[in-house]
Amino acid sequence: MNITSLYTQIIQRQSYLCVGLDTDPTLIPDYLQNQPDGVLTFNKAIIEATQDLCVSYKINTAFYEAQGLKGWEIMEKTLSFIPKDKLVIADAKRGDIGNTAKKYAQSFFETLSFDALTVAPYMGEDSVKPFLEYPDKWVILLALTSNMGSQDFQMLRLKNGNLLYEEVLKKSSKWGNASQMMFVVGATQAALLPRIRNIVPDYFLLVPGVGAQGGSLEEVSKYGMNSQVGLLVNTSRSILYASSGEDFAEAAHKEAFTIQQEMKVCLEKYLKD
Amino acid sequence: MNITSLYTQIIQRQSYLCVGLDTDPTLIPDYLQNQPDGVLTFNKAIIEATQDLCVSYKINTAFYEAQGLKGWEIMEKTLSFIPKDKLVIADAKRGDIGNTAKKYAQSFFETLSFDALTVAPYMGEDSVKPFLEYPDKWVILLALTSNMGSQDFQMLRLKNGNLLYEEVLKKSSKWGNASQMMFVVGATQAALLPRIRNIVPDYFLLVPGVGAQGGSLEEVSKYGMNSQVGLLVNTSRSILYASSGEDFAEAAHKEAFTIQQEMKVCLEKYLKD
Repeated sequence: MNITSLYTQIIQRQSYLCVGLDTDPTLIPDYLQNQPDGVLTFNKAIIEATQDLCVSYKINTAFYEAQGLKGWEIMEKTLSFIPKDKLVIADAKRGDIGNTAKKYAQSFFETLSFDALTVAPYMGEDSVKPFLEYPDKWVILLALTSNMGSQDFQMLRLKNGNLLYEEVLKKSSKWGNASQMMFVVGATQAALLPRIRNIVPDYFLLVPGVGAQGGSLEEVSKYGMNSQVGLLVNTSRSILYASSGEDFAEAAHKEAFTIQQEMKVCLEKYLKD
Repeated sequence: MNITSLYTQIIQRQSYLCVGLDTDPTLIPDYLQNQPDGVLTFNKAIIEATQDLCVSYKINTAFYEAQGLKGWEIMEKTLSFIPKDKLVIADAKRGDIGNTAKKYAQSFFETLSFDALTVAPYMGEDSVKPFLEYPDKWVILLALTSNMGSQDFQMLRLKNGNLLYEEVLKKSSKWGNASQMMFVVGATQAALLPRIRNIVPDYFLLVPGVGAQGGSLEEVSKYGMNSQVGLLVNTSRSILYASSGEDFAEAAHKEAFTIQQEMKVCLEKYLKD
């Protein structure tokens, strides 16, 4: 999917919601935990309940890998339930030397049908470039994450005056344009969004951390939105586990609807001409 | 496996070789490429041919993920061929927020039977800690990698005077002791090993980049060895693809033997009392 299609989708649906399918087999409703295809049934119902309200789905591969072979099978089948007009993100945070990065690109963009992959920046340019060779596919590079540990290295001041995450944004935005790359910026870091928009005005930001992690959609939208919207806001747990009963899909729809309505208001308020 | 067993193995075998099973289905001998279980047959033969000469195997998950479900199945079966006295490393370079890191730990240490996992440091302490809760399992944190891209961020000078990779070593070595953590240091960075040993004198270093990437075993051993050896030197391509013919396993054995013999000499020269 290219940046124009993504923007069009957002405007049509009045939503920049990305639903995170980080499905934990121990957190789905009890009656599904006892079924062999419980997670798959759950994912299918979540997708059906939210697909009119979001523009993207994000699969955190850890939740599937944890179940081994069976988990990968569930992940592949889950992909087949996602409508073709969605941007499908593998949140896998990969990053390795060139010849290995090529294999990861093959894995996520060819073997699996993801549109985008999250990548860690620590290993530098040649660990990112192989992903940029696929037209209409995206690298989403970690910049400033939503967790406590973001303080340990990302917020370190460099001798040249930049914080490390700012250096990551500056340097890596030269590797690929705004139709190939996005950046992960945690919603808990909304206060830093004006600085970030200064460095990467045109790039989409994938923003996790609204909901369970405590980030504010209003703040993120106020400081992060650009003229192409430029935001995909991810919510996982608050949608997936909105109810632990048989009405989980209905509850997920309600929660996604609440978020979409807030996004509609934010688009009216903050979308720059 | 704990650090004492690892040291004992190294002394017994006079080897600190880690064989990297980064098997590329397009690079194995032609006659195996045509067999449905070609990669598995190849891996089994490589393991049998090298197990007396090494103390560790490293599986780079990218090479298996690239083949999707089938690849994960091959990886699981490959694990079952590795003798129990080897340190088995998943070179997966994972790194994610706490609740996701727990899932990765479950994936590699419970669902799969790896002893160690490579982890990227960018997301900080809470992305590493969940892996340290498993007794006799290891986190191998990326510090200074062997690729060109290591210059982009790892070698940046911080305001406090440290280079970023030095800061990673200093800070993260407080998170876990030398029986729980190792660090990745590329063989192409051997000139920096004295500085690295200054910061982390007691930790094992996993050293890729000897062989195809051009690092020198002699240099790495001279500057990197400590009183517990403290080195696992990985070689992948030069062993795996020592011959492209039916004698590939014999050629792999010969190459591993050459390396082991050089290691034996290095142990005599550089193992500190």
